[in-house]
Amino acid sequence: MKDFAFTGGRPDPYTFPTEALIEASAKALRKLGGQLVNYPGESGYRGLRELASMRFERREGVPLPVDNTSITSGSMQALELVLGTFIKPGDTVLTEEFTYSGTLGIMRHLKANIVGIPMDYVDGMDMDALEAQLKALKRQNVTPSLIYTTSNHQNPTGAILSLERRHRMLELAEEYDTLIVEDDCYGDIDFVPNPTPASLFKLDTSNRVIFIATFSKILGAGVRQGYFVAQQPYYGMIHHNRWDGGTSALASAIVAEFFMEHLEAHLETTNAAVGAKCQTVIDTLEANVSDLCTWTKPRGGLFLWIDLPESTDMNKLSELASAKGVGYSNGSAFHYAGDPVKAIRLAYAYCHVDDVPEGITYLAEAIRSAQMATVDAAAAD
Amino acid sequence: MKDFAFTGGRPDPYTFPTEALIEASAKALRKLGGQLVNYPGESGYRGLRELASMRFERREGVPLPVDNTSITSGSMQALELVLGTFIKPGDTVLTEEFTYSGTLGIMRHLKANIVGIPMDYVDGMDMDALEAQLKALKRQNVTPSLIYTTSNHQNPTGAILSLERRHRMLELAEEYDTLIVEDDCYGDIDFVPNPTPASLFKLDTSNRVIFIATFSKILGAGVRQGYFVAQQPYYGMIHHNRWDGGTSALASAIVAEFFMEHLEAHLETTNAAVGAKCQTVIDTLEANVSDLCTWTKPRGGLFLWIDLPESTDMNKLSELASAKGVGYSNGSAFHYAGDPVKAIRLAYAYCHVDDVPEGITYLAEAIRSAQMATVDAAAAD
Repeated sequence: MKDFAFTGGRPDPYTFPTEALIEASAKALRKLGGQLVNYPGESGYRGLRELASMRFERREGVPLPVDNTSITSGSMQALELVLGTFIKPGDTVLTEEFTYSGTLGIMRHLKANIVGIPMDYVDGMDMDALEAQLKALKRQNVTPSLIYTTSNHQNPTGAILSLERRHRMLELAEEYDTLIVEDDCYGDIDFVPNPTPASLFKLDTSNRVIFIATFSKILGAGVRQGYFVAQQPYYGMIHHNRWDGGTSALASAIVAEFFMEHLEAHLETTNAAVGAKCQTVIDTLEANVSDLCTWTKPRGGLFLWIDLPESTDMNKLSELASAKGVGYSNGSAFHYAGDPVKAIRLAYAYCHVDDVPEGITYLAEAIRSAQMATVDAAAAD
Repeated sequence: MKDFAFTGGRPDPYTFPTEALIEASAKALRKLGGQLVNYPGESGYRGLRELASMRFERREGVPLPVDNTSITSGSMQALELVLGTFIKPGDTVLTEEFTYSGTLGIMRHLKANIVGIPMDYVDGMDMDALEAQLKALKRQNVTPSLIYTTSNHQNPTGAILSLERRHRMLELAEEYDTLIVEDDCYGDIDFVPNPTPASLFKLDTSNRVIFIATFSKILGAGVRQGYFVAQQPYYGMIHHNRWDGGTSALASAIVAEFFMEHLEAHLETTNAAVGAKCQTVIDTLEANVSDLCTWTKPRGGLFLWIDLPESTDMNKLSELASAKGVGYSNGSAFHYAGDPVKAIRLAYAYCHVDDVPEGITYLAEAIRSAQMATVDAAAAD
């Protein structure tokens, strides 16, 4: 049986640049050689921090501060360090109603009181709802530790926080004296020109934004090269909790050498491949379940969100899809409180493009077959 | 001015196998290719876990359990995870009176009550002293969370815990119901045949030993490839605190490919180089300060410990040595309570062998010049 894996936020394996990475490895190793006996330092290999800065400048027009950039094991370790620094047990944190399950896992592990803010699938978190929540918390004398947001191509919905909302979020963070953790893991995975507004980190004027990004989603999660950027005193506070001796300089140097030469061309290749898969998913859904479901139309990123009919039997859907080798993620995994929701997330970059129509057709059939006979049951009464 | 760096536990940079690692990178990348878009899993790249198991079997005659081995960012992250899992604020932990400053840093960060056990520089921790301490703690109803020991080529003294003491430590751990964390970071850096007895992890019959090791000290700290090994339930408990998404499979696969082919030959080359430097340090000390100091004679590892005269002005020594470009580590950094001690640690693997005599001669001169004029002062009275 074929494996139609629409699970896990992984980039396209078929455009993975094996040969270019082999060349980059040789360059990196000849450049560093015996220097690799040294510790990378807790901020990590400077060449990759410089590359991260240039990557940001390419899109945002301004560089990242290299001395305030720290390389981590993917964005996960950045999240672990940043959230671990600012969240104490019982602290309140705010996030989109639906957000990355890994972030929720860390927040729960830290015993945070997670408050989900309503959002829409196009423009992201609802700022009126955020303001109302901040007001309500203030009445209870609660200052949230932070607002966590995936500003670009949000996981799981693909929403892009609008420029207007970004400005408003920054104002509210200042008014209510809280931090913003901006997770930009999916930045640069763009299917159309310039889909995303200026980053919160760039717009910030009152040192309230900690920026997280990664090379995992444009290259591979297996390389484990993410980073966080924070101004002082936050940078020092976060490193006070870091005891791992820094991230592999070997892997960092290879990734730096590769992107130094190939960033633009690699993004063009992989974004075209991933964008084509996304469109194929949409076309196949359109042809099969447009009467039953609605779904997001991502302008980038790795995820598409399908709202299913209320009459969907989620367990049956899972069984039917699995039986055909189709994997997806249950919507409840992304709900801030883990509530059951009639929605699923598809990660469309991993499956081979030629297999997408077959896989999504099976999924569509499973969705149709998983509908509980509510109308018939009513008619039978 | 030349830099005589006897600081930091780094291997020999001059035998760093750059070209062989370039070959290993090409092999690893061709083997994995697009699979690198996947997460390594929290236990890490299986190929390196298998290699770690074979490495252990080569010396100990039995393999490590691959499914209970987890790759980490050097041994530091292994320590962070293991100690972080078993130490709660206020918990008592036992260790050699002098031990690795990084471990002490993590223990202090975790607010442990660190109790140092007297040791000797040849056979390691004193088991009578350990028993007395365990008894005393039991009278106060205190069960220590763990005993931390660097069994082989101890940092900072070079001591090797004798086989008899290993058996006794295991008995005591069982009798007083505590865990042992065996840090084997310096295992395989042997200057003579078979200098180290069977590991505590191998000798353990009651599931009390968590084993930590690394490839950092036989290859380079910059590669950040360490590991811990623990049986259940400990393995699961430790991973419950792990949120980094796993260690770079790119770096792990390269290190695995390299050692799969070159472990024996590489150890032979680097151990010969490091052993020669160690001997040169000893010869130079012998020729210059045998009337003033005593020092350990390591049978392996990266460190030599010098006991200085009580009359040494440690600040003056530091100034005089720095002025000649000589770096070393102050003994107090390795004391469990940070007490000032008239001792220093030399890490001898990093400096070029041709520079060792000059550097150590400067150091010897500095030691001589840093003696406080106690006799003269007494005579002047």
